[in-house]
Amino acid sequence: MPEKVLLHPAIDDGIVAGSDSFAGGTLVCLCVDKPVKVRIDGQVVHNHACGCTKCWKPAGATFSVVAVTPTANVHVVENGDKLAVVDPGALILRHACRACGAHMHGPVERDHAFQGLTFVHTELSSDKGWQAPQFAAFVSSVIESGVSPKKMDGIRARIREVGLEPYDCLSPPLMDALATFAATKAGTFRE
Amino acid sequence: MPEKVLLHPAIDDGIVAGSDSFAGGTLVCLCVDKPVKVRIDGQVVHNHACGCTKCWKPAGATFSVVAVTPTANVHVVENGDKLAVVDPGALILRHACRACGAHMHGPVERDHAFQGLTFVHTELSSDKGWQAPQFAAFVSSVIESGVSPKKMDGIRARIREVGLEPYDCLSPPLMDALATFAATKAGTFRE
Repeated sequence: MPEKVLLHPAIDDGIVAGSDSFAGGTLVCLCVDKPVKVRIDGQVVHNHACGCTKCWKPAGATFSVVAVTPTANVHVVENGDKLAVVDPGALILRHACRACGAHMHGPVERDHAFQGLTFVHTELSSDKGWQAPQFAAFVSSVIESGVSPKKMDGIRARIREVGLEPYDCLSPPLMDALATFAATKAGTFRE
Repeated sequence: MPEKVLLHPAIDDGIVAGSDSFAGGTLVCLCVDKPVKVRIDGQVVHNHACGCTKCWKPAGATFSVVAVTPTANVHVVENGDKLAVVDPGALILRHACRACGAHMHGPVERDHAFQGLTFVHTELSSDKGWQAPQFAAFVSSVIESGVSPKKMDGIRARIREVGLEPYDCLSPPLMDALATFAATKAGTFRE
């Protein structure tokens, strides 16, 4: 029997649809004592599985699941003193709980197509209705986390089986947004 | 009537299958006088349409079509004195004819997953049997060449219509090769 491919708990057992009327919720870190709490106003967008080596993943998961929301919608409401930026040089300024390691919010402040957006993991919230994962990004990058290249065909097949399209970069709309930003910077953009 | 989407002459009118027994051929630059000639031993691999801004394209084309072959199979046989490297800092050392501008061969010499391979444009050869294009890479990047983002849905649809899969990076096997190289460098590779 072939080894079962585990992607992430939020997709392995079937993807739960989001709610169009979802008004937001609160992310809570994994600490039992004094957990960090971050309130998100409204729904997130571009929620997706991500194979990159930098995004926070729950134990045993091959992929993270991460979404974005305007930074203005993100509010650290409790125990923010436990947060520290993982890598101040990275595009995404991932604020992690120093005690449990969960990434609570990751704003993009640099001049970039994603400036003004914050990356968040909705699985850290017990509220129901968050946007479901829409696609899988940076799939080939899981090899950099120690996944055998021989498993990639099975991983891509499993991603499609759960209803997501696997990409080795971001989704076409996001890649178009990055290219549009680059074209505008280069002075080559045409409407 | 919607505007016709032109990708590249080698794919717009239907893709011609390659020959399994193809033994190689000669690329000739566009110059009438003293053209540069480059002989390729054997078949090329990973031939693909590429939307990046650096690959050489024929006039009017949105995409280039470019393949790779081991550098040992590439021989400049005539008028090599007309060649100059376009960008000595780039990963692909594109050797272009200084008179007509065609890129005749682009070796990767740097420590990289593609080291030892050379990028070539088989459309510069009149020999028949070269590998057909297999996929389209860096599709979103055509926006950086001045293609309107509004045209991207039509471009991706047209790429699929001619029988190719559009990617905004390279194909999954090549992306896996890049990730494997990165994992090996980082010491995280697992068989």
